[in-house]
Amino acid sequence: MSAINVGIIGVSGYTGLELVKMIHTHPVFELSYVANSEGGTTLATLHPSLAKVCDMQVHKADPKEASKLCELVFLALPHKTAMAVAKPLIEYGVKVVDLSADYRLELDTYEAYYTKHTDKENLKNAVYGLPELFKEAIKKASLVANPGCFPTSAILGAYPFLKYRKADTPLIVDAKTGVSGAGKKLSETTHFVHVNDNLFAYNPLSHRHAPEIAEKLSLSKEEVHFVPHLCPITRGMISSIYMQVKEEFDEKKVLEECYKDEPFIRIVKQPVDMKNVAGTNFCDIFVKRQGDLLFISSAIDNLQRGASSQALVNANLMMGLNEDLGVPRIAYVP
Amino acid sequence: MSAINVGIIGVSGYTGLELVKMIHTHPVFELSYVANSEGGTTLATLHPSLAKVCDMQVHKADPKEASKLCELVFLALPHKTAMAVAKPLIEYGVKVVDLSADYRLELDTYEAYYTKHTDKENLKNAVYGLPELFKEAIKKASLVANPGCFPTSAILGAYPFLKYRKADTPLIVDAKTGVSGAGKKLSETTHFVHVNDNLFAYNPLSHRHAPEIAEKLSLSKEEVHFVPHLCPITRGMISSIYMQVKEEFDEKKVLEECYKDEPFIRIVKQPVDMKNVAGTNFCDIFVKRQGDLLFISSAIDNLQRGASSQALVNANLMMGLNEDLGVPRIAYVP
Amino acid sequence: MSAINVGIIGVSGYTGLELVKMIHTHPVFELSYVANSEGGTTLATLHPSLAKVCDMQVHKADPKEASKLCELVFLALPHKTAMAVAKPLIEYGVKVVDLSADYRLELDTYEAYYTKHTDKENLKNAVYGLPELFKEAIKKASLVANPGCFPTSAILGAYPFLKYRKADTPLIVDAKTGVSGAGKKLSETTHFVHVNDNLFAYNPLSHRHAPEIAEKLSLSKEEVHFVPHLCPITRGMISSIYMQVKEEFDEKKVLEECYKDEPFIRIVKQPVDMKNVAGTNFCDIFVKRQGDLLFISSAIDNLQRGASSQALVNANLMMGLNEDLGVPRIAYVP
Amino acid sequence: MSAINVGIIGVSGYTGLELVKMIHTHPVFELSYVANSEGGTTLATLHPSLAKVCDMQVHKADPKEASKLCELVFLALPHKTAMAVAKPLIEYGVKVVDLSADYRLELDTYEAYYTKHTDKENLKNAVYGLPELFKEAIKKASLVANPGCFPTSAILGAYPFLKYRKADTPLIVDAKTGVSGAGKKLSETTHFVHVNDNLFAYNPLSHRHAPEIAEKLSLSKEEVHFVPHLCPITRGMISSIYMQVKEEFDEKKVLEECYKDEPFIRIVKQPVDMKNVAGTNFCDIFVKRQGDLLFISSAIDNLQRGASSQALVNANLMMGLNEDLGVPRIAYVP
Repeated sequence: MSAINVGIIGVSGYTGLELVKMIHTHPVFELSYVANSEGGTTLATLHPSLAKVCDMQVHKADPKEASKLCELVFLALPHKTAMAVAKPLIEYGVKVVDLSADYRLELDTYEAYYTKHTDKENLKNAVYGLPELFKEAIKKASLVANPGCFPTSAILGAYPFLKYRKADTPLIVDAKTGVSGAGKKLSETTHFVHVNDNLFAYNPLSHRHAPEIAEKLSLSKEEVHFVPHLCPITRGMISSIYMQVKEEFDEKKVLEECYKDEPFIRIVKQPVDMKNVAGTNFCDIFVKRQGDLLFISSAIDNLQRGASSQALVNANLMMGLNEDLGVPRIAYVP
Repeated sequence: MSAINVGIIGVSGYTGLELVKMIHTHPVFELSYVANSEGGTTLATLHPSLAKVCDMQVHKADPKEASKLCELVFLALPHKTAMAVAKPLIEYGVKVVDLSADYRLELDTYEAYYTKHTDKENLKNAVYGLPELFKEAIKKASLVANPGCFPTSAILGAYPFLKYRKADTPLIVDAKTGVSGAGKKLSETTHFVHVNDNLFAYNPLSHRHAPEIAEKLSLSKEEVHFVPHLCPITRGMISSIYMQVKEEFDEKKVLEECYKDEPFIRIVKQPVDMKNVAGTNFCDIFVKRQGDLLFISSAIDNLQRGASSQALVNANLMMGLNEDLGVPRIAYVP
Repeated sequence: MSAINVGIIGVSGYTGLELVKMIHTHPVFELSYVANSEGGTTLATLHPSLAKVCDMQVHKADPKEASKLCELVFLALPHKTAMAVAKPLIEYGVKVVDLSADYRLELDTYEAYYTKHTDKENLKNAVYGLPELFKEAIKKASLVANPGCFPTSAILGAYPFLKYRKADTPLIVDAKTGVSGAGKKLSETTHFVHVNDNLFAYNPLSHRHAPEIAEKLSLSKEEVHFVPHLCPITRGMISSIYMQVKEEFDEKKVLEECYKDEPFIRIVKQPVDMKNVAGTNFCDIFVKRQGDLLFISSAIDNLQRGASSQALVNANLMMGLNEDLGVPRIAYVP
Repeated sequence: MSAINVGIIGVSGYTGLELVKMIHTHPVFELSYVANSEGGTTLATLHPSLAKVCDMQVHKADPKEASKLCELVFLALPHKTAMAVAKPLIEYGVKVVDLSADYRLELDTYEAYYTKHTDKENLKNAVYGLPELFKEAIKKASLVANPGCFPTSAILGAYPFLKYRKADTPLIVDAKTGVSGAGKKLSETTHFVHVNDNLFAYNPLSHRHAPEIAEKLSLSKEEVHFVPHLCPITRGMISSIYMQVKEEFDEKKVLEECYKDEPFIRIVKQPVDMKNVAGTNFCDIFVKRQGDLLFISSAIDNLQRGASSQALVNANLMMGLNEDLGVPRIAYVP
C-alpha cells in the first residue's frame, strides 16, 4: 500500500509526542509535517527521547502549508486554537482529527462550558470519535472530534448497561487520573511536591467532561455526577462507575456481548489496573454487582486511548485502513 | 499530674511504631512495657529511626507481665491474636484499647466476616472507639475497639447527613488508600513494582470494612456499597462518599453544626487532600451537592486517625484526660 | 523560663512552614511575628494544614516592625533579599538566623557565585551555623548564616576524616536530593511528570554549594567535586562521599569519636536511608572502606537539618538555651 | 526472510516478559517455545497485560523439548539454574543467550562471588554480550553471556576513557537503580512502604557486579569501587562514574569518536535522565571534566539495555541479522 502523508499540529505537548512515536512506526502513514506555535526547532530538541529515532524540522503552524503536504492532520492543540486551525484545513480538503474539545459537543453545551464557537458549520458535520459507538460514521467523516479522556473511560464502561439502568437514579463516575492529563503547563497542581504521596478531588461535580459524558450517553446533565481525582501517577486513568439497575441480568455476559468484536476492549475478571493498559489503546473493563448497584471499573491510558492512540484509530478508519494498524497494544509493564 | 503507665503489645508493625512515637512525647503516659510475638530485641533494632530517641527492651508478649506494669495496654495485633491477649488483660484489671477488628462488630457479623469469637463476654461490653459518636461511653469503658481505617473516614463523612438520606438508596463509598494500611507483610500487592505508577480496586463490594460501616451507621449491609482502591502512596486515605438525599438543606451548615465542638474535625472549603492530614489525628471533610446527590470527601491518615492516634484519643478519654493530650496535629507537609 | 519572642520573615515557603510548625510547639520560643513579601493573609490560608493548629496574621515584611516584637528573627528568604532585611534587623539589635546563602561565604567567593554583597559589615561577623563545628561561636553570634542543605550533609560526612585524606586527591560528593529543596517555584524541573520515575544530575561540577563545602572544610575549590542528582522524593538528601585516605585507621572509631557528644549525629551500621531522618534534625552517617578509598554516606532531611531545624538549633544556642530544645527527633516513618 | 524459531525459558519474571513483548513484534524471530519452572499456565495468565496480545501455552522447562522447537533460546533464569539448562541446550545444538551471571566471568571470579561452576566447558567459549565491545565475537558465538545491568551502564560509560586514566587511582561508580532490577521476589527491600520516598545504598563496595565491571575493563578488582543505590523508580539506571585522568584531551570528542557507528549509544549535551531511555536499548552518555576528574553519567533501562533488549541484539547478531532488528528505540516518555 502506498504511503499516506499525515501531519501533526501541536507537537510540543505530551499527546503530540505520542502521535509522533506511533506514526513514526506506522506501516502506512508517513509523517510529512509537524508544527507548533513557534516553529524554528526540531522534534529531538523538543523531545530529547526522539534523538536518533525520529528527528525532523518543526514548523510554525500554517494550515495552508500543512494542506499541501498532508491528506490528514492531527490537531493536538488547546480548545479554541484548534477550531481556528481546523476550519481552514477542512476548507483545503484535508481530513482532520481534532484532539481538543472544539467539535465534541452540541453548540449550546459547548458554548456554556467552553467559549464562543467560531466554526459552527463544521461542528454540524463533526463525528464523535469513539470507535466502539460510532465506527461507521467515523469511516465517512472528514472531521473527527476525538473524545476527552474521562468521557472515553466513563462512556465505554457505562454504555453496555444503559438499557438496564433504573430511571431517575444518579450515574456516578468517580475517576482517578495521572498527572499527564493536565499537560505540560506549570501549575501548583502539577508541582511534584504537591502531588507526590498525595491525592485529591478537583472540580468535583463541575468538571467540563461531565456534559460530554452525558451527551454521548443520551443522558441529561443532571443525571451524570462526575468527580475526578488527581493521583501521583504519570499516566493512567480509572473510572469507577456506580449505576443502579432495575432487573436481574448477567452483567458479565452483557459486557462481553456488547464488545465481543472489539479489538481494543478487554473484559477482565480481576479489578482493572492502570499499568496493564499503559502505553496502549486498550480499555480494560471489570463489572460486579451488589443488589441493584453495578460497580463498573474501566481503565485506559489517558494519553493513548484517552487521546493519541484513539486519534490514530480514528485516522485509520477515516483513511480506509484497518482500525488497529500501527496502534500500540503492548503495555508499559512492569 | 502523676504519670500513667501504659504498654503496647504488637510493637513491630507500623501502628505499633506510631504508638511508640506518640507515647514517648505524651505529657502523662509513660511507656512501661513493649512487646511483640518473639521478644528478645529492642525498639531501635526493630525501628532504626528510634535510635537516640526511644530505645527499650521489647519483650515476648505476656499479658500477666503487662498487667503488672501497666494501667492500660494498646493492642496492635492481628485479629484473633488480639482477643486472646485482651481477655486476660481485662481479667487482670487492665484497660485495653484494641486496634484489631476483634471487638468492633456484633457477634454474628464478626463471625460471618472474620472467625469464631473466643471472648464473647468482653465483646458485649466493648465500646466502639469513634470519639465523635461515642465519647461518653468511651470515657467509662474498660475495653475500647478502635475502629478500622476505612470505617473511620466513611462514618465521619456520612454520619452528619444520615437523617437527610433518601430511604432505599445506596450509600456508596469509593475509598482510596495508601499502602501502609496493608501492613508490613510481604505480598505481591505491596511490591513496589506492582504499586508504583499504578492504581486498582481490591475486594470491591466485598471488603470486611463494609459491614463495620453499615453497623455503626445503623444501616443494613445491603445499603452500603464499599469499594477500596490501592494507591501509590505510603500513608493517607480518602473516602469519596455518594449519598442521595431527600430535601433541600444547607449541607455545609449541617456539617459544621454536627462537628462544631470537635477538635479533630476540620470542615474545608476546597476538596480534601491526603497530605494536610498526614501524621495527624485530623479528619478533613468537604461536601458538595448536585441535585439530590451529596458528594462528601473525607480524608484521614490511615495509620493515625485510622489507627494509632485515634487509639491514643481513646486512651486519653478512658484515663480521664483531655482527649487531645499528646495527639499530633501538625501534618507531614510538605 | 519566660518566653522569648521570635519572628519569621519569609513564611510562604517550605522552610518557613517548617519553622512555624516547630516554634508553635517550642517550650520557650513564642511566635510573635510572621511575614512574607505581600502580607495581608494568614498562616492557615497560606498553609491549609495549619488550620485549627496555628493561625495568625501574616504581615508584609517590615524589619522595624519585626524588631519591636522579636528578640530573634529567622529569615527564610531568597539570597539578596535576605541581606536587605538582615542589615536593618541587626542594626535594631535583633538577632538573626539567615537561611539564605548571603552570609555563608567569604566575600570574594560569594560575589563570584551569587551577586554583589550589600552588607559587608555584617558579613565579617556572621558565624557559619553548623553546630557540630562552630558551637561556641554560634552561642556568641548575633548573626548566624545557616548552612546550605548539601554542604550540611557533605561537611558532616567528610569532616571527621580530613586529617587522613591523601593530599591532592579529589574529594567527590555524589548527592541525591528530594524535590522540596528546589522550593515552591514552578519550573519544568519540578513538574511531576518530569520528575516521577526519573532521576538526573543537575549542575554537575558547577553547583553553588561546592565552594561552600570547600571553604568550610578548608579545601580549595579545585579539590571538591560535587554532583547533585534530583530524585522523585519529596524530602530527604544523601551525600555519597568518596575520599582517598593515606593510612590504615579504624574508620568507624574515628567517626564515633568525632561525634560522641553530639545529640543529632547517629553513626549507623547499615547504609543510611532518607526516611529514618525525614522530619528530624538528625544526620545519619555510615562509613566503609575499600583499599585507600572511604565511602561515607550521610543522610539528612533537606528541609530540616538542611534548613529549618538546624536554624532552630542555632537560635537555641544564640539565646542560651539547650541546643535540642523543641528540635524534632521523631522521623516521618513509615 | 524465513522465520527463525526462538524460545524463552524463564518467562515469569520481568525480563522474560520484556523478551516476549519484543519477540512478538520482531520481524524475523518467531516465538515457538516459552517455559518456566512449573509450566501448566499461559502467558496471559502470568502477565495479564498480554491478554489479546500474545497468549500461548507456558511449558515446564525442558531443554530437549526446547531444542526441537528452537534455533536459539533465551534463558531468563537465576544463576546456577541457568547453567543447568544451558549445558544440554548447547549439546543439542541450540544457540543460547543467557541473561544470568553464569557465563559472564572467569571461572575463579565466578566461583568466588557466586557458586561452584557446573559447566566449565561452555564457560570457556562463552562470549560476553556487550555488542559495542565484542560485536564480532558475538556474531560467531553459540553461547552469549548477557551482561549485568550495572556493568552495562558502567562499562559503556568508562570504556572510552580508559587510556586516559591515571594509573593507581580509584574508578568510582556511584549507581542508581530502579526497583525492577531486584526482580519479582518479595523482600523487605522491595516493599512499597520501604522504598517510596526513600533512597539508600546497598552492598556498598561489595556488590557482585563490581568484579564484572573490573574484569571487562581489564582492571583489577581493587581498582573498581562500586556503590549501588536503590531508588523509588520502577525501571531505569544511571551510573555516575568518577575517573581521574592524566592529560588534557577533548572528552566529548573522545566519547563521540568511540561510539560514532553505534546505533544504540547517544552522546548527550545535558545530563542524562532515566525516562529518555526507558523501554529502549539506548545508552545515553554525558561527560564533563573538572581538573583531572571526569564525571561520566550513563543511563540505561535496567530491564532492556540492562537485560532483555541487549539479549535481543545479541540474538540478532548470532543469527546473522541486523543488530537493531525489532529492538525498541521509542522511550516510555512521558
